[in-house]
Amino acid sequence: MARIVMKFGGTSMAGTERIRRVANIVRKQQAAGHEVAVVVSAMAGETDRLVNFCREANPLYDPAEYDVVVSSGEQVTSGLLALTLQAMGCKARSWLGWQLPIHTVEAHAKARIHDIDSDALLAEMGQGVIAVIPGFQGVSDDGRITTLGRGGSDTSAVAVAAAIGADRCDIYTDVDGVYTTDPRIVARARKQKYVTYEEMLELASVGAKVLQTRSVGLAMKNGVRVQVLSSFIGDDAPPADDLPGTMIVSDEEMAQITENENMERQLVTGIAHDKNEAKVILTRVPDKPGAVSHIFGPLADASINVDMIIQNVGRDKGETDVTFTVPAADLARTQAMLEDKRDSIGYNRIITDSHVAKISVVGVGMKSHAGVAATMFKALADRGINVQAISTSEIKVSVLIDEDETELAVRVLHTAYGLDAEDEAA
Amino acid sequence: MARIVMKFGGTSMAGTERIRRVANIVRKQQAAGHEVAVVVSAMAGETDRLVNFCREANPLYDPAEYDVVVSSGEQVTSGLLALTLQAMGCKARSWLGWQLPIHTVEAHAKARIHDIDSDALLAEMGQGVIAVIPGFQGVSDDGRITTLGRGGSDTSAVAVAAAIGADRCDIYTDVDGVYTTDPRIVARARKQKYVTYEEMLELASVGAKVLQTRSVGLAMKNGVRVQVLSSFIGDDAPPADDLPGTMIVSDEEMAQITENENMERQLVTGIAHDKNEAKVILTRVPDKPGAVSHIFGPLADASINVDMIIQNVGRDKGETDVTFTVPAADLARTQAMLEDKRDSIGYNRIITDSHVAKISVVGVGMKSHAGVAATMFKALADRGINVQAISTSEIKVSVLIDEDETELAVRVLHTAYGLDAEDEAA
Repeated sequence: MARIVMKFGGTSMAGTERIRRVANIVRKQQAAGHEVAVVVSAMAGETDRLVNFCREANPLYDPAEYDVVVSSGEQVTSGLLALTLQAMGCKARSWLGWQLPIHTVEAHAKARIHDIDSDALLAEMGQGVIAVIPGFQGVSDDGRITTLGRGGSDTSAVAVAAAIGADRCDIYTDVDGVYTTDPRIVARARKQKYVTYEEMLELASVGAKVLQTRSVGLAMKNGVRVQVLSSFIGDDAPPADDLPGTMIVSDEEMAQITENENMERQLVTGIAHDKNEAKVILTRVPDKPGAVSHIFGPLADASINVDMIIQNVGRDKGETDVTFTVPAADLARTQAMLEDKRDSIGYNRIITDSHVAKISVVGVGMKSHAGVAATMFKALADRGINVQAISTSEIKVSVLIDEDETELAVRVLHTAYGLDAEDEAA
Repeated sequence: MARIVMKFGGTSMAGTERIRRVANIVRKQQAAGHEVAVVVSAMAGETDRLVNFCREANPLYDPAEYDVVVSSGEQVTSGLLALTLQAMGCKARSWLGWQLPIHTVEAHAKARIHDIDSDALLAEMGQGVIAVIPGFQGVSDDGRITTLGRGGSDTSAVAVAAAIGADRCDIYTDVDGVYTTDPRIVARARKQKYVTYEEMLELASVGAKVLQTRSVGLAMKNGVRVQVLSSFIGDDAPPADDLPGTMIVSDEEMAQITENENMERQLVTGIAHDKNEAKVILTRVPDKPGAVSHIFGPLADASINVDMIIQNVGRDKGETDVTFTVPAADLARTQAMLEDKRDSIGYNRIITDSHVAKISVVGVGMKSHAGVAATMFKALADRGINVQAISTSEIKVSVLIDEDETELAVRVLHTAYGLDAEDEAA
């Protein structure tokens, strides 16, 4: 007997038929002898609909009232899943954020969970009741509804799992696990049996949209074992207890697994790509102390997230070109701000390019192995792919390239790091 | 300065533009110097959508989970109205049923309000905050969401008005008041300036769908002054304080008003029609004590509401025909039940007819005046309209006629009781 939290996203909850499929997966998990809590998202598209209503009502909306409106989507699906489970003969009930309660700090529309009362929940789960909990929502100390920000249901699931001491938190999505890279680009991409929290954090932050970054950080902090697996499985699919998806584990657990299974720890876990970056070049910026802070200070104040930065060697005496990337969605705002600050920065021209892609190589193994970056640059150079910018972290190397070369670069790197599956996938 | 509760139905809340119109009416009411609380319904069609989801999930749905799902419609509109009022520069916030709280007895899907905590509400209203309260919902003693049954938002509004000691409860609808009869049938129908609670109760129960019957009963019990008026008014409409709609008042207040304005108290207040009845005739039922209880006992047990009953004079020795009416929606169920009980009742044939209409004449004045029923029968007979059944209460006479003659009968009676306006309406 184990205690399992299961989380289902909006695509899995979109309509009666899909909710029935979800209920069936939940029912089987309980029938395997486990205590089960389920965290659900709103039906796909519903949160967008509600957010639009808020924007139409008041472009500068009060986040407290926004939370009242948008939290209703998960309220509906949690009631419907409880009803559907009951129709299958299971004992089930919903607990809304204010009912458990899920206490959050009072930052409406971007709240953080600080505590979950789990006593009532555990008592009922011990009696065989399946607990259904709306994701994304909580309640503030002054008794108002809060929400966690878009995609917050993954975080809710991990927080509930931590609060009830769950043995596993299964995140059901529309992919069946974490792959070595996007299988739509590389047919020989392999599903990973295990990745570490740190690797998952880096992959999530560079465009592998499997899990919300925050939820991975929370799982790491609380040591919650998270499995990513598919909710679109047939009746003949292996049970979740057989770990058919990808398990997110700690570095220590990963080391243990590698040792037990007598495998070599792989250097690189995944290749991610992200086409949502844009490149900005400021030409002929004065090359003197403090000049760069005139550029990046105002951007930071406006919460524009600058990623890669390159300061070229001065081409003329006392002047340099500065290149950096921002999210493509913030490009117009960035440009307007830079034009506004033209005098204080003192550049010659702004050149922008949103036709770029960021390719990232991620792996905990590179902590202890040199040469990962060198392999990357050589493999790309051999195919004539020009690297426009580079950024690195302890377990990641990212390069900026021409967007048209995205798929080629991903395939080249996937092969270069020996990630290709032996038999081509069907 | 007065304290006013304003209630808006689903048609008024259907979408951003309409909510803006509602907010404008509310804003003006506050600008006139009043403390204002607003009770809102879900957007038109939303509750039906949510109820359908519940039915699809589980035809025998758990009313506690049903309440979680369907209460979300009013949660959304209350948040949106608060946001819209804020956009106009008003101070506003929503209070959900569990937040006030609105305590109800724990009968999910048909709860009754037993208490509303109004301290926090009154304190904030005193500070100029417009309180927005979702109709239809409350919370049970064990902290679960309850709903009041369809159309319950009128009842919520009256209950809030009673709890905060409101000077007036304005119910905004898609009609601009209570008419002497349906203006679509009689062009010379007149809007009533006043009707009594009892008259409104009778009119509501016989098909004049202006107010939910329960809300009228609650208003009568608590002495809440209710005004029915239109939310579809132009900017040049008279303010609600001028009582442009219909006021629902007590019998005593009505007597006072009649005396003050030196008017004659009218005998008949309104003519209502209802095409949702069906007639059932059982032929050759044994004419002996207790026979009738074999018919109506089982119908009562099945919550089928029998209205008119006629037992014909026995046509054969020891046998009689029994005629009665039931809601047309219950006809099939009634018929199945009667066929099932054929042996214990002992009738010969069942004859049914849903092509009938009930015409009702309502007026407190008839308590003290004889001849109202006689006028009705004569007027109908003069035009050759056959009366198939009759039922009466202290302030109402109803007759069952052929459905095709509905409009004719309503017009004839409207004239017969002197209700026609002097100038034809535009």
